[in-house]
Amino acid sequence: MNRFGTRFALSIFGESHGPLVGITIDGCLPGLSIDASDFNADLNRRRGGVSAGTTSRSEQDLPHFVSGVFEGKTTGAPLTIVFYNEDKRSNDYDSFRKIPRPGHADFVASKKFNGYEDFRGGGHFSGRMTVCLVAAGVIAKKQLNALSPSSNPIIIEAVVEEVGGYTNIEQGIAYAIAQNDSVGGIVSCRISNLPIGVGEPFFNSVESVIAHAAFSIPAIKGIEFGSGFGASKMKGSEHNDVLIDAAGTTKTNHAGGCVGGISNGNDIVFRVAVKPTSSTPKTQESFNFQSEKIESFQVNGR
Amino acid sequence: MNRFGTRFALSIFGESHGPLVGITIDGCLPGLSIDASDFNADLNRRRGGVSAGTTSRSEQDLPHFVSGVFEGKTTGAPLTIVFYNEDKRSNDYDSFRKIPRPGHADFVASKKFNGYEDFRGGGHFSGRMTVCLVAAGVIAKKQLNALSPSSNPIIIEAVVEEVGGYTNIEQGIAYAIAQNDSVGGIVSCRISNLPIGVGEPFFNSVESVIAHAAFSIPAIKGIEFGSGFGASKMKGSEHNDVLIDAAGTTKTNHAGGCVGGISNGNDIVFRVAVKPTSSTPKTQESFNFQSEKIESFQVNGR
Amino acid sequence: MNRFGTRFALSIFGESHGPLVGITIDGCLPGLSIDASDFNADLNRRRGGVSAGTTSRSEQDLPHFVSGVFEGKTTGAPLTIVFYNEDKRSNDYDSFRKIPRPGHADFVASKKFNGYEDFRGGGHFSGRMTVCLVAAGVIAKKQLNALSPSSNPIIIEAVVEEVGGYTNIEQGIAYAIAQNDSVGGIVSCRISNLPIGVGEPFFNSVESVIAHAAFSIPAIKGIEFGSGFGASKMKGSEHNDVLIDAAGTTKTNHAGGCVGGISNGNDIVFRVAVKPTSSTPKTQESFNFQSEKIESFQVNGR
Amino acid sequence: MNRFGTRFALSIFGESHGPLVGITIDGCLPGLSIDASDFNADLNRRRGGVSAGTTSRSEQDLPHFVSGVFEGKTTGAPLTIVFYNEDKRSNDYDSFRKIPRPGHADFVASKKFNGYEDFRGGGHFSGRMTVCLVAAGVIAKKQLNALSPSSNPIIIEAVVEEVGGYTNIEQGIAYAIAQNDSVGGIVSCRISNLPIGVGEPFFNSVESVIAHAAFSIPAIKGIEFGSGFGASKMKGSEHNDVLIDAAGTTKTNHAGGCVGGISNGNDIVFRVAVKPTSSTPKTQESFNFQSEKIESFQVNGR
Repeated sequence: MNRFGTRFALSIFGESHGPLVGITIDGCLPGLSIDASDFNADLNRRRGGVSAGTTSRSEQDLPHFVSGVFEGKTTGAPLTIVFYNEDKRSNDYDSFRKIPRPGHADFVASKKFNGYEDFRGGGHFSGRMTVCLVAAGVIAKKQLNALSPSSNPIIIEAVVEEVGGYTNIEQGIAYAIAQNDSVGGIVSCRISNLPIGVGEPFFNSVESVIAHAAFSIPAIKGIEFGSGFGASKMKGSEHNDVLIDAAGTTKTNHAGGCVGGISNGNDIVFRVAVKPTSSTPKTQESFNFQSEKIESFQVNGR
Repeated sequence: MNRFGTRFALSIFGESHGPLVGITIDGCLPGLSIDASDFNADLNRRRGGVSAGTTSRSEQDLPHFVSGVFEGKTTGAPLTIVFYNEDKRSNDYDSFRKIPRPGHADFVASKKFNGYEDFRGGGHFSGRMTVCLVAAGVIAKKQLNALSPSSNPIIIEAVVEEVGGYTNIEQGIAYAIAQNDSVGGIVSCRISNLPIGVGEPFFNSVESVIAHAAFSIPAIKGIEFGSGFGASKMKGSEHNDVLIDAAGTTKTNHAGGCVGGISNGNDIVFRVAVKPTSSTPKTQESFNFQSEKIESFQVNGR
Repeated sequence: MNRFGTRFALSIFGESHGPLVGITIDGCLPGLSIDASDFNADLNRRRGGVSAGTTSRSEQDLPHFVSGVFEGKTTGAPLTIVFYNEDKRSNDYDSFRKIPRPGHADFVASKKFNGYEDFRGGGHFSGRMTVCLVAAGVIAKKQLNALSPSSNPIIIEAVVEEVGGYTNIEQGIAYAIAQNDSVGGIVSCRISNLPIGVGEPFFNSVESVIAHAAFSIPAIKGIEFGSGFGASKMKGSEHNDVLIDAAGTTKTNHAGGCVGGISNGNDIVFRVAVKPTSSTPKTQESFNFQSEKIESFQVNGR
Repeated sequence: MNRFGTRFALSIFGESHGPLVGITIDGCLPGLSIDASDFNADLNRRRGGVSAGTTSRSEQDLPHFVSGVFEGKTTGAPLTIVFYNEDKRSNDYDSFRKIPRPGHADFVASKKFNGYEDFRGGGHFSGRMTVCLVAAGVIAKKQLNALSPSSNPIIIEAVVEEVGGYTNIEQGIAYAIAQNDSVGGIVSCRISNLPIGVGEPFFNSVESVIAHAAFSIPAIKGIEFGSGFGASKMKGSEHNDVLIDAAGTTKTNHAGGCVGGISNGNDIVFRVAVKPTSSTPKTQESFNFQSEKIESFQVNGR
């Protein structure tokens, strides 16, 4: 399903080489101010082609509000934001029809959709889709802001913690360039000032819902909360976050802010593992390898 | 929400010290054979009090089928399985009302439910609830069996990979006993023979749905698929699983069987990090620590 | 699906001749007082065997709270209420396996569930299931009461408006007894003091959600809001409810309290058409008719 | 929520006087042929401004496929269809801010969305939105066609049965023109060749799901299946559809093709009551009436 959430509900659509990608958000508060410039900071952090070593696909990424906004404010009706695709490469995508790219969704998409999928640039599986998620995040932060007290706003911050195994990001990128290869990394995220009591166990724990959303990005291959995998090597007496006052303040935050699936007033802290980008300067190599093995890969359907 | 899934949908209910815990499964195929003895193997693996170093809570864990079964077979109507609670300890649970136990959901439950929660033994947040998940798993495996070709059945296997940091389980348990403490661990799971094409991106990727379910168990604090966090330190040319034939067989399985959120025919492989049990022989220590800090913790509501 | 609702979510289970029928309610407020006697008034209105001309199936209908209640109050965890089945008739239900009863779900259930359905007394399709809906209604009213101002409580009232075409109920029942047949009827419902703004168009209009719930009762075959089918014969200038003050009071209530799918402050008014009970003293006749036509009706599956 | 359905899931967006209205369909089969001309027949039946007595709003209603279509065929990814708004009237919509139009959603929308709603032409509550539903219907019919055997295709047909109380449509329209008023009507729908067993009781009966969808159109105020309200005046021995063969053929179809919420192989037959359009040549009259009563209606928010 291309939908996520119930109260603040997302529907995502579009393809890498179609006319546009877009997102519809159902459940927006009426009265939120919306201006294209509000999206710049977050969209720029996503954009490639700016710093060395990132993808050379470069687009303006200008959000267009085609529903749910009137006189610069959200109306409460579904908010649809679209981004036109500008940089559609003239690559010979027909070759992908014959030999799927390793690491990409080409093979599974062809099997699942009987060869009818839009295979150009990964189609609906393209990293391009994440521009919609970034836009949804901008709106989500506006909505949280409107709902939380201005004296104690909910703050969501994510930082790149590792690139290619290096905790110095520049070093990681330099390594990737030197290797002429793509590299993975780790992003860590911290949510501050979330009230106590968020999370709907049994099945909609804070961890469940965040992990569900995070793993919708195909490059994410792991997530951990608080001490995470480290907790598996700890003793209970170490890991338990003892309370130091009646407000629920704890001495440590090994739990990453969630106990029993419910926020406990501490910062929600989690880390996600990002696999190296499938497209690398060395793709041709594995492509050649595959081409020798696979003569007969047939796209059915069409 | 205490519900999970759409086609095979679970509703879970009950408390540690109520009369019973139970699960209703909507979407069962009619005609599956159901006998209490079918659940023994899986229920016994969950049960404490059997081997050294596990919880001393010990119950028969006998499943009772109160709806959806007729003449020993599922009917297609909702299947409800209940387990009566036998071993309700006579502990002085009233003390928990005053001072919440560290690591447990006592504090957040009291805040979220205004002090009306059933606090005895963790109530709805008790590990006791997982007996229902095990029962659902038994049914799920029966259903998958009925739906997959007998020549190529879907096989789901989970093993304890680490206890307390030791890959030798006995050693880990001995360590916990020696330390007089609880310890965490790692469980790894492998799903074989899953057809290509399972998973509903964008938001219901295989990883999203499995992670959502796994994180509903409060003790789980991390999950990774395939190379997982290790992928973050790899190069793309290493991580990409190159195809070696037109059927989709790959040379490696770094992706853990999911590409673009869709199963690719390889084994689905994932590992979860389990935090150490909050209840440890050393709980009294931290309890005392807290009691000094917190005089005034008040359960509101009642 | 045997589930309905999102914030106040119902899961229903059980069969006419199984050990029990039950309902799990997810989303109950914590702190609602719950006592079996609270259910008497509504359960008695549903019960047969009390007044002349109603079904002779007679049961105590005593609600048992098996989860979500602690010390007489809801906890916020899933609330499960079960009713044990006492009056399981010793009829020769095996005959139904061969010849499905006209008007009942026997035929479709057998087809849908491959003959594995519990056919005794209609199984999961029995009118017995509605005891669970009545119980859910009692809880829903408690929850609405807790959420609405005591000076202006939401009031939900339903009355039998017609029986067998008669607006005098006694006359309708006398007619049914005289005819030695079952009869249909009309129930009208009025919800007062619902705040303006309830309803989530486009798809979850007030009418959509009420109709969805109403039609889950198999005997309901029609529903209309406000002037309903009568509106189809009206002119716009007649039907439009003109406002007479700035608070939204209208001169008429042809719309039945919903405009654009949203409550407008007037009473929500709707009527449902109930078909005559399929089981009638004349069932044997049509049964004989069918038996002549159908020799070969085969229950597959078993 | 502006979403409906699970397997074939709709998300609707747009406003009467925004740039466009649109719909995203999740769950489309890959490989369906899509051409703008396929929509003509159904879109033309919805269009006003063609025959006498219908709305004078006249638009091309040309569907644009902005996602999910590649080389003229659906891809299996979300299908988004948009319709640009052309005929945005230059009416003085500011007057509606002060005095809401009777029968329209102006009042409730203003209350629900704190005055931030797009009030021009009814905004998201406009009849314009139904162009999206018609488009979804065209796709749904294509999908059903692809899924059902070509020898026995599922056929869905709707006809206007009554206009202004007349069963002769021309007469009804002539009456409306003569009265210089809008009139209501009745539409009846028939679904043929639906397989036995469709419908997911308890809560997702065939009637529940159809009624849910139908009542999302604000003008619909009643629905009945089979004999519907007429059934309330029938006897059980009349209403019960007796079987005449083992295939499930019945002598009559009083149930309208659904028993126990499940399709029984007969045609699904239902009728919906449509209220008279709120905008009538006489609107000014009631507008004047209201203006005298309401001086102080204040749109809050802005």
